[in-house]
Amino acid sequence: MSTDPTTSRWLVDLSTEDCWELAMSRPVGRLAWSGPHGPTVIPVNFTADGKSVMIRTKAYSEAARECEDTMVAFQVDSFDEDTRQGWSVLMRGRAHFEYSSPSSEGGPDVWVSGPRSLQLRIEVGEVTGRRILGSD
Amino acid sequence: MSTDPTTSRWLVDLSTEDCWELAMSRPVGRLAWSGPHGPTVIPVNFTADGKSVMIRTKAYSEAARECEDTMVAFQVDSFDEDTRQGWSVLMRGRAHFEYSSPSSEGGPDVWVSGPRSLQLRIEVGEVTGRRILGSD
Repeated sequence: MSTDPTTSRWLVDLSTEDCWELAMSRPVGRLAWSGPHGPTVIPVNFTADGKSVMIRTKAYSEAARECEDTMVAFQVDSFDEDTRQGWSVLMRGRAHFEYSSPSSEGGPDVWVSGPRSLQLRIEVGEVTGRRILGSD
Repeated sequence: MSTDPTTSRWLVDLSTEDCWELAMSRPVGRLAWSGPHGPTVIPVNFTADGKSVMIRTKAYSEAARECEDTMVAFQVDSFDEDTRQGWSVLMRGRAHFEYSSPSSEGGPDVWVSGPRSLQLRIEVGEVTGRRILGSD
């Protein structure tokens, strides 16, 4: 059932706790950083623990080449096209790589096949989020 | 029906034409730029025409303050959690603001209520996209 597009909808800020909980409810987030060609945003599988976000990548990926010791953003959202409601969470922090063997335990369940020998950890320093609410 | 997580999945590059078509099939994309506090990513409603992406924002928003004449990225994606398949498109270009009255015609259908007097136009210079394919 589609919602009347003229319905009033507004944004409310989310608590830090809600931001982490909502972010962790999704299997895909987006890693953003500023590289030599401008801002880059790529979807990634991830895990998070309330302090850090962990992502796995290939040793020679764009993220691997450009994110070490860099300020990055990590964004997660979910929207319902019919009700036009949803939420978005933005985390910012410094990224560090942790080297591990391809078979090592832990980290996110990566959808795309193949080795992901680099684990990127974002030490999250700032978390903000907003939810679209509507009167219907 | 959930898919076997051990199924082989790989990435294929999308054509420029497919990138635009897929991006325009979604109501929400993500604007990313590098501001004074690091990379920022916000979800936005948008329209696109194969050359530019148009977004509406408030005159005093963070995007309004930080994106004028700046290299930005615009990202759209869609993923299916059950099949673990989907696609992602990344566009990069310079952003310019076009001033217009709140009642002016055209531009995206913005979900959140309230005036959005600034139209941001991204002159897209680079478009890339990838799709996750699986053997199932």
